[in-house]
Amino acid sequence: MSKSLTTRGEDYSKWYNELVVRAELAESSGVRGCMVIKPYGYAIWEKMRDELDRMFKETGHVNAYFPLFVPRSYFEAEEKNAEGFAKECAVVTHYRLKTDPDNPGKLMVDPEAKLEEELIVRPTSEAIIWNTYKNWIQSYRDLPILINQWANVVRWEMRTRLFLRTAEFLWQEGHTAHATKAEALEEAEKMMNVYADFVENFMAVPVVKGLKTETERFAGADETYCIEALMQDGKALQAGTSHFLGQNFAKAFDVKFTSKEGTLDYVWASSWGVSTRLMGALIMTHSDDKGLVLPPKLAPLQVVIVPIYKGEDQLEQIRERIAPLLTELKAKGISVKFDDDNTQKPGFKFNEYELKGVPVRLAVGQRDLENNTFEVARRDTLTKETVSGENIVAHIEQLLVDIQNNIYQKALDYRNTHITEVNSYEEFKTLLETKGGFLSAHWDGTPETEERIKEETKATIRCIPLNRKEESGTCIYSGKPSKGRVLFAKAY
Amino acid sequence: MSKSLTTRGEDYSKWYNELVVRAELAESSGVRGCMVIKPYGYAIWEKMRDELDRMFKETGHVNAYFPLFVPRSYFEAEEKNAEGFAKECAVVTHYRLKTDPDNPGKLMVDPEAKLEEELIVRPTSEAIIWNTYKNWIQSYRDLPILINQWANVVRWEMRTRLFLRTAEFLWQEGHTAHATKAEALEEAEKMMNVYADFVENFMAVPVVKGLKTETERFAGADETYCIEALMQDGKALQAGTSHFLGQNFAKAFDVKFTSKEGTLDYVWASSWGVSTRLMGALIMTHSDDKGLVLPPKLAPLQVVIVPIYKGEDQLEQIRERIAPLLTELKAKGISVKFDDDNTQKPGFKFNEYELKGVPVRLAVGQRDLENNTFEVARRDTLTKETVSGENIVAHIEQLLVDIQNNIYQKALDYRNTHITEVNSYEEFKTLLETKGGFLSAHWDGTPETEERIKEETKATIRCIPLNRKEESGTCIYSGKPSKGRVLFAKAY
Repeated sequence: MSKSLTTRGEDYSKWYNELVVRAELAESSGVRGCMVIKPYGYAIWEKMRDELDRMFKETGHVNAYFPLFVPRSYFEAEEKNAEGFAKECAVVTHYRLKTDPDNPGKLMVDPEAKLEEELIVRPTSEAIIWNTYKNWIQSYRDLPILINQWANVVRWEMRTRLFLRTAEFLWQEGHTAHATKAEALEEAEKMMNVYADFVENFMAVPVVKGLKTETERFAGADETYCIEALMQDGKALQAGTSHFLGQNFAKAFDVKFTSKEGTLDYVWASSWGVSTRLMGALIMTHSDDKGLVLPPKLAPLQVVIVPIYKGEDQLEQIRERIAPLLTELKAKGISVKFDDDNTQKPGFKFNEYELKGVPVRLAVGQRDLENNTFEVARRDTLTKETVSGENIVAHIEQLLVDIQNNIYQKALDYRNTHITEVNSYEEFKTLLETKGGFLSAHWDGTPETEERIKEETKATIRCIPLNRKEESGTCIYSGKPSKGRVLFAKAY
Repeated sequence: MSKSLTTRGEDYSKWYNELVVRAELAESSGVRGCMVIKPYGYAIWEKMRDELDRMFKETGHVNAYFPLFVPRSYFEAEEKNAEGFAKECAVVTHYRLKTDPDNPGKLMVDPEAKLEEELIVRPTSEAIIWNTYKNWIQSYRDLPILINQWANVVRWEMRTRLFLRTAEFLWQEGHTAHATKAEALEEAEKMMNVYADFVENFMAVPVVKGLKTETERFAGADETYCIEALMQDGKALQAGTSHFLGQNFAKAFDVKFTSKEGTLDYVWASSWGVSTRLMGALIMTHSDDKGLVLPPKLAPLQVVIVPIYKGEDQLEQIRERIAPLLTELKAKGISVKFDDDNTQKPGFKFNEYELKGVPVRLAVGQRDLENNTFEVARRDTLTKETVSGENIVAHIEQLLVDIQNNIYQKALDYRNTHITEVNSYEEFKTLLETKGGFLSAHWDGTPETEERIKEETKATIRCIPLNRKEESGTCIYSGKPSKGRVLFAKAY
């Protein structure tokens, strides 16, 4: 790395873009708005996916796979959903190319291979899935259906940013069907809690659990639960949503079931998803001006060992010293690499592993050989200490736990000091520009006020926190009565 | 199951289609040629994917993710590849829908949202990936690149069949870049061997390793390695391919590197893939007229225990008896289910688990309680025995191994007795219709003869076996000289 990263203080946005590329997480592709997720970034996503998948299965869900394409007629069926996604969807209209007679070696769409009905590349799969569930559900005995899908989806966003907003992204989408409203609501809330558990305990990112306002709800949902995180620049990021869909899709696709009592009712539904957007949250919550900071539970490489040596003999001595340590760490399920690449200097390697966010770095030199010690550096605090070889394994194990806890606590402290109660619109506008973060304010409950505030300040209501206290007050904008505070913020 | 399956003898093709649906592996969707992979089918695919992924990682590969869309200009770059896939690709031409003014509530393609350049939904990713590698490769130090991707791809097939040939399918595609021809060739051959290892040792499906003829080669490859399996109806199925791409894509996308010696050379490439088509091979190799037969190593559920009882008291006794067994089996990593669903009779359950291919079924009734025994049934042979409770765990462990070996051996015996050496075209045609299987015959090495035989008999050259003996002879069709036998068969 010849040049250091732009710092967060200089330009947070530039810092993020540079970091994603320099740490080899992802890059823009030649396809408008689509990214290439590079091996290092994908390895983190794989760890996230595996943990989430385990949590979904533990809560009784199974995986399945539904078609990439949604025929236009299905897409239209649930009106609000269609309206919400029609403006940003990729449309397949033809199924063949042919040689362009005017341009040898070039291809063109074959006009004779036009589809009778256009196919939408799924922006979300409710339509295709509920068209399928229609055939799977006749009786209460067929319920609940608790299915999850890992897939790619496409939303034709005009302004894209790596991980945060891309035309194609990877995600999981749960789609469940239930006999009762209570059960579907419970499922939606349960999955919000699963997401919160994952984001806090694996990603080490604290979240606020809440409900979206009507304006911010998923198109086609009766209620949207969400988890909201706060980035280091004071902007919020929606980390996951879980929707109670009521009977909207059941009605759109005519999915009814015979209840235990013999009545014929529409099925109740939920859907819930998190995406590669979480990578953005992970990066922006913890990283610093030196590069990535990764929580040990999701780091593809948890420990790196760098030898500091002159000549092959010394390297060989270090290699012998290290061998049992490598074995022991691996046996404990800790991923470790001994970097004996002789084409790079230790200083270069240190910078590189800091950029990549490897939680623990060990260095071993001549003095360490003599004293049976290691130099142990932790990525989160950028501090070093000398540790005896005798208890190095236990030390590393504890350090990984400490780092996981420390970065969570740091993010939590930041987040907690950035939830500010405000009681006037002036104060609201000032704090939004100076301090940022979540502003907890009274709101009159109308979409009109919400829209005005958004237009004037770019702040949106991130959520109505689930744990808010019942407290009457007056709306900071309209002065009308309010039933409680909601969280506003500028958001990604 | 009110009605039993069509038998293989009656109509093999119908048997397959029925089995896939009745065993809840997959079903056709409302989208032309696209399937829904149902939870049970997906659980098998997940196990296959996890094993393959482990094997790829053990051989030094990493995962990444590239865009779903290939701009037309990239797609065109490698001519043979473009020609090979142009006739069957889904083309995105627009990025927005709008309300249809003539049909309220309906949507139409927005003519103002036409893409300047069409996007092809990837039928395979060489083009998009090599356009990316171009930026990643400058020097020999950047090589090799050993990347794999798990993804969905789309090929607009006109005649589709669940798993075997679908418009959209799931697969993995490895794409590697090398400094030398030898290394790229070695990689292509290595991955063919990894596939063979997986298919034989996990799927219990024997394969022939070989090379494709020029006609059957991947569009854009200089050489295609393949593994070919034989189904119970005597038709072959290509289970995996691994391509040596030469410098074709490097030249198409201008990907050069500076060698150690300072020269500027084009990069050498391989690509390799297996898909959900393997599910078809798995099903057709082992299953019988009762339903699926699954190899224990890939069965989502390996052992099922069915209680045979009258009244809740007896069920409770069985439950107590079973509890430690469930714990012990799970501790050994064996998946097991105790099916105490009281809405279905044991006989119904037996049929259901036979249909689903669960390798081992235990039944426990009053007499078993008294004698401390289990009735143990194995799915592959449909035989039953009474086993003492004292060594039941060891017995089950051994049984799973035996079943895995037995179904492989059975498939191998079938395959071996269906490789027939033929020495005249008459014999070839007769055997093809009566016995089927692989016909090992001399061929003159020309695409013309290959094409004629295909037209006249529907048999294609499945491969030039890697282990064939050098043996001169005369072509069964043209009478011209041949350098050795190749394997012909009708194929899926």
